[in-house]
Amino acid sequence: MSQRNPIEAIFGSISPAEFFYRNRQMAGFGNSSQAIYSTVRELVENSLDSCEDAQRLPSVKVEMYCDDTDVIRIRVSDNGTGVAEEYVSRAFAKVLYGSKFHNRQRRGTFGLGVTMAVLYGQITTDSPVRVHTRCSSSQGKEYTLFIDVETNRPIIESNRPLKRELDGTSVTLQLRGDLKRAQERIVEYLRLSAVSTPHAQILLEIDGKESYKFGRWWDTIPPPVLGSNPHPRAADFEMLRRLAQTNGEKRLQDFLIASFQKVGTKTSSRFLKFVSFEPARKVNSLTRDDFARLSTALRKFDGFENPDSKSLSPIGKDAFLAGIKSTFNTSSQYYSSRGPSEWQGNPLIVEGVIAIGDEFPRSDIPTVYRFANRVPLLYDSSEDVLTKTVKKVKWKRYNVDSSAPAALLLHICSTRVPYKAAGKQSIDTIPEIETEVLSLLRDLGRHLGKTLRRGEKALREGKKMREYARSFRHLVKYGAALAGLEEIPNTNHLVKQLFEVLPDE
Amino acid sequence: MSQRNPIEAIFGSISPAEFFYRNRQMAGFGNSSQAIYSTVRELVENSLDSCEDAQRLPSVKVEMYCDDTDVIRIRVSDNGTGVAEEYVSRAFAKVLYGSKFHNRQRRGTFGLGVTMAVLYGQITTDSPVRVHTRCSSSQGKEYTLFIDVETNRPIIESNRPLKRELDGTSVTLQLRGDLKRAQERIVEYLRLSAVSTPHAQILLEIDGKESYKFGRWWDTIPPPVLGSNPHPRAADFEMLRRLAQTNGEKRLQDFLIASFQKVGTKTSSRFLKFVSFEPARKVNSLTRDDFARLSTALRKFDGFENPDSKSLSPIGKDAFLAGIKSTFNTSSQYYSSRGPSEWQGNPLIVEGVIAIGDEFPRSDIPTVYRFANRVPLLYDSSEDVLTKTVKKVKWKRYNVDSSAPAALLLHICSTRVPYKAAGKQSIDTIPEIETEVLSLLRDLGRHLGKTLRRGEKALREGKKMREYARSFRHLVKYGAALAGLEEIPNTNHLVKQLFEVLPDE
Repeated sequence: MSQRNPIEAIFGSISPAEFFYRNRQMAGFGNSSQAIYSTVRELVENSLDSCEDAQRLPSVKVEMYCDDTDVIRIRVSDNGTGVAEEYVSRAFAKVLYGSKFHNRQRRGTFGLGVTMAVLYGQITTDSPVRVHTRCSSSQGKEYTLFIDVETNRPIIESNRPLKRELDGTSVTLQLRGDLKRAQERIVEYLRLSAVSTPHAQILLEIDGKESYKFGRWWDTIPPPVLGSNPHPRAADFEMLRRLAQTNGEKRLQDFLIASFQKVGTKTSSRFLKFVSFEPARKVNSLTRDDFARLSTALRKFDGFENPDSKSLSPIGKDAFLAGIKSTFNTSSQYYSSRGPSEWQGNPLIVEGVIAIGDEFPRSDIPTVYRFANRVPLLYDSSEDVLTKTVKKVKWKRYNVDSSAPAALLLHICSTRVPYKAAGKQSIDTIPEIETEVLSLLRDLGRHLGKTLRRGEKALREGKKMREYARSFRHLVKYGAALAGLEEIPNTNHLVKQLFEVLPDE
Repeated sequence: MSQRNPIEAIFGSISPAEFFYRNRQMAGFGNSSQAIYSTVRELVENSLDSCEDAQRLPSVKVEMYCDDTDVIRIRVSDNGTGVAEEYVSRAFAKVLYGSKFHNRQRRGTFGLGVTMAVLYGQITTDSPVRVHTRCSSSQGKEYTLFIDVETNRPIIESNRPLKRELDGTSVTLQLRGDLKRAQERIVEYLRLSAVSTPHAQILLEIDGKESYKFGRWWDTIPPPVLGSNPHPRAADFEMLRRLAQTNGEKRLQDFLIASFQKVGTKTSSRFLKFVSFEPARKVNSLTRDDFARLSTALRKFDGFENPDSKSLSPIGKDAFLAGIKSTFNTSSQYYSSRGPSEWQGNPLIVEGVIAIGDEFPRSDIPTVYRFANRVPLLYDSSEDVLTKTVKKVKWKRYNVDSSAPAALLLHICSTRVPYKAAGKQSIDTIPEIETEVLSLLRDLGRHLGKTLRRGEKALREGKKMREYARSFRHLVKYGAALAGLEEIPNTNHLVKQLFEVLPDE
């Protein structure tokens, strides 16, 4: 045993809770003001997702209290589905526990965010999360929960019946931090959340004094977002192996039709011909090499349709514009969208609005507001695919300069958003996404260019007309003098009628 | 049961392997060229860490082969400690399994990187990782391993004795990607690795044809990096609770002395007075409120010493300069360092070199090369604390402009580097780190300013002297003519002696 080298003794396994406890900055909990922001963000995201599951117009209330110390109490309440008894403790106090069917657009990624907030509260104030929830199967229950970080297991501190008026969940957390420093970002986050979820109403109350109300700007609940089978181009070896495991008895063709979206008899026949496999062959007769050929061919075959968009929930033109007009002071705005397309087999829609308004900063490049699956992204903009792509466009070509303050509100929807970090602040530069965003931007730019040129033309025409009007009034004056009139006749109505401008004297 | 709301049925838990399989871009495996880069990086980091554990001068060999398809075979071999039989399968095929004592500077963070490379190889080429290792307890063994992603358990495909000349490990992986696109970054990464680990020799061989050799630039093995107790300011509730659990029988004062670094009888007495606790009180008599008071006080008390630096391994002045001079074509360079200080109780040293050389880009701001725990960081520079802080400095004040191309090589050492994402490319902006970096930059800047001014002065002086020399030569010519000499005497040696310049005719 003494022969062993020094490193042998120190190998070991750690739980996901422990990993994110040690690396909390990766999940957006690196410092106290970011932690407050992330806590609000994660709770609000969960609330909005839950209301969408319940197919209700979301009413979300955020309350923040800060006593004389630096301990902040945050409560977020919603009218969503509520959480059933058997899931509460794990949903709030077990890292990487969450919604299993992931193949549809959702704000939350997999079961990390809220548990990180619970963890942060626990390590900075030693206080549990308090969850008060009511769902279809109960009249209301209140739990207080801790996380056992080393084992990643929930600790139920208390659990009692407590009536709640309506279905939904209220989550209360205490954490240490500087509310003043975080407040501005939180207000901005909620204001923009009501732009990307315009059918939600979001209230914010601070210390029972200051209060804000965002939304509701749109009264229609978007259609339910449905899960779907994966697209064939998303099938790496891992996915293919899993699908085959549960479909061993199937014929290869039936397996393809049952496993992937938008693959019918025709497409599957053409594909099997392309890869030279017998349609009637049994899945469990395929060797490892067969799977390798199959997987490569699935990504190379160009006969598959574009992915299904029923698993996505874009904001949509009218709702997006309604949110923007209610939130910003804009003089014009234009909507465009691209897709459904895909990146690595994941369905993708990008949509955006270019708006002109005096409240945007004057610059040679439009101000960018980023959204992913209806979530506003406020941090780490410079490494984000949206910001990077905006910088690639020559905005001068579209007449954008500091004289016409413009903003871009860009929204990426996908069943999988490739966030660069678990804190979900910036999106990785994936070529397929970049291409789609670039096309969207060019379309928005062209329209903006036209509007600005039209504006310029209108400006020029107006100036010309005002000059004509001035000359006309001089003519009238001299005419009146020649005619010996004492008083110059009022020609305002004539000026207006002839030159379509208001008299400037 | 039919009463249940739609979300209830879809809760579940996922393994860490599954989480990073779904979110591989967070670990630096978002696209194929980044994946190749990250694979080399993680394997080389492990090799260098292992050689340091073995206290040997590292010899690391990286081989990359690419056949006609897009499948790349990567092998990294080292002369490190090797991995003992009982740990191999988990160390390479279980996510979040790794070195347990984390409280010292290491390149690798906790057991994620190499397993991500294994996972990526497996899902893109369906091939296992091949590990050939020999350590003090064996003559050599070869394993082929897969990861069971759903359960995060290693699958041992094969396992056989295979002699290996010396202790160390060779890891071979196959993955799909575009080698050409990744190659430049990999070469740069290895070149810079030899700057930050100048006692290592790193060989790179591509397709058995192209080959590169970096280092060794320094012959001394740095002293072993030792683990240490945590600093009292690092003690959040979670840490305090864990420490107390295993020390319940201790007196409070003894507990503090035994648990934390650089806390002796004197410091602990003063601290306990500050927080008004009896030194003789038993740890297991403390209530939750007591722990709360204790934890708050530990972070507020200003009588603790700065953290221990024995758990850190800065490159050091001579070794850093040796690496830089061997790698870059510089005309002058200056080293400075700050610390040990701390961020949130984690020991911290920052060191840096400012170098001037014609190969750096001409700019108003020095080119930045970033290193963290001796690892070069190449991606995502714009959100990094080092880059951000460099941008905050007014370099003009230090005479930096495009006429003197300067580079900054900056190195952060800490027992915990707050990477923004698991892919370890960019460091979070932590105020304490920013402050230290800013002081370092100002010191480097001041020195650079002086050098540049000195250079300018030397330039001016040289010009003056050359003018004197020219006049002198004219005097000699006219003198010679007056004296009726046929030939003008050679005065080169005189010019050189008097004006210290070479004659320019």
